[in-house]
Amino acid sequence: MNEPIYETVVTTVNAAGTVHVAPMGVRYRGEHVVLMPFKPSTTLDNIVATRHAVLNLITDTRVFAGCVTGRKQWPTRPAERIAGVRLDNALGHVELALHEHADEAQRPVLTMARVHEATHAPFIGMNRAQAAVVEGAVLVSRLHMLSADKIDGEMAYLQIAIDKTASAAEHEAWGWLREAVAAHRARLPPSR
Amino acid sequence: MNEPIYETVVTTVNAAGTVHVAPMGVRYRGEHVVLMPFKPSTTLDNIVATRHAVLNLITDTRVFAGCVTGRKQWPTRPAERIAGVRLDNALGHVELALHEHADEAQRPVLTMARVHEATHAPFIGMNRAQAAVVEGAVLVSRLHMLSADKIDGEMAYLQIAIDKTASAAEHEAWGWLREAVAAHRARLPPSR
Repeated sequence: MNEPIYETVVTTVNAAGTVHVAPMGVRYRGEHVVLMPFKPSTTLDNIVATRHAVLNLITDTRVFAGCVTGRKQWPTRPAERIAGVRLDNALGHVELALHEHADEAQRPVLTMARVHEATHAPFIGMNRAQAAVVEGAVLVSRLHMLSADKIDGEMAYLQIAIDKTASAAEHEAWGWLREAVAAHRARLPPSR
Repeated sequence: MNEPIYETVVTTVNAAGTVHVAPMGVRYRGEHVVLMPFKPSTTLDNIVATRHAVLNLITDTRVFAGCVTGRKQWPTRPAERIAGVRLDNALGHVELALHEHADEAQRPVLTMARVHEATHAPFIGMNRAQAAVVEGAVLVSRLHMLSADKIDGEMAYLQIAIDKTASAAEHEAWGWLREAVAAHRARLPPSR
């Protein structure tokens, strides 16, 4: 049985203070948060440089869909105890310090200690359209590896939850994902 | 564009104090929470009798999978300001009072006012397996309307997120759903 993975957004800054926003599946081990970014990774470079990161717990899936479709700037505000930022739309955030860095050729393991955490807004329930956007974002990040049939089949399946349960945020996010699928399709040679 | 729907669990009690736990998709309208139970509904009967309900915001999807597979008893504790209970495993809950009851033949509209709300645990991130369990629970609640091919196809698709991201809770919930599919299959005549 694998460890559970939670979909979050990690915000880091580089030495010059430039913000980087990256959706990331994270694991919790005891009190630690474990990040395993795929190299090359700006998040990895920033954490190695600054020793800090912020874990953002969000349900505004525009960030997930946006980051895989070229929309990488999101409103932030300063972290409280570390040099860094958290997302404006986070339900909560955890400020992290690098505890252990196990380097690996492909996926280093960054074990992060909790410095500070805060809740900003209540969780208002699960939403099937939010989940569909997350699945769609995973799909869009893998377009080059998937057949048109598989993409169309999954998008059609996920569309059902969008139609039935989405808020304006998920409709917007879903539109970005559909555009990305169409743009990918348009780039393929016509024989495929 | 439809209104967004959030998957929650509504707990009610009848006049004798017997607890009823019901997963329910709810809508938020301004400060109100809107419930639209399908008749016949114990939740509806209890709210009409007591004028109160508790909205539970949870990510422990065993409750969703359990309630569609005959596991309807979940640990609760007393509500704070109304006669009622909230789920032990709620990340947060909202205590509700009936504000308006628009009766309808099939789906009455219960507009509920907020009496009290509290947060009990932080939201730790979206989880693809939790979403898969919710989709699987929807599927299991509709087994009698769906073809074996559609059920098998969806379960196989959802299994991917379970295998990759589930915690022990989702593995348990997913097992209940798979058992329910198998039990349904076993009841069908062999020719189908």
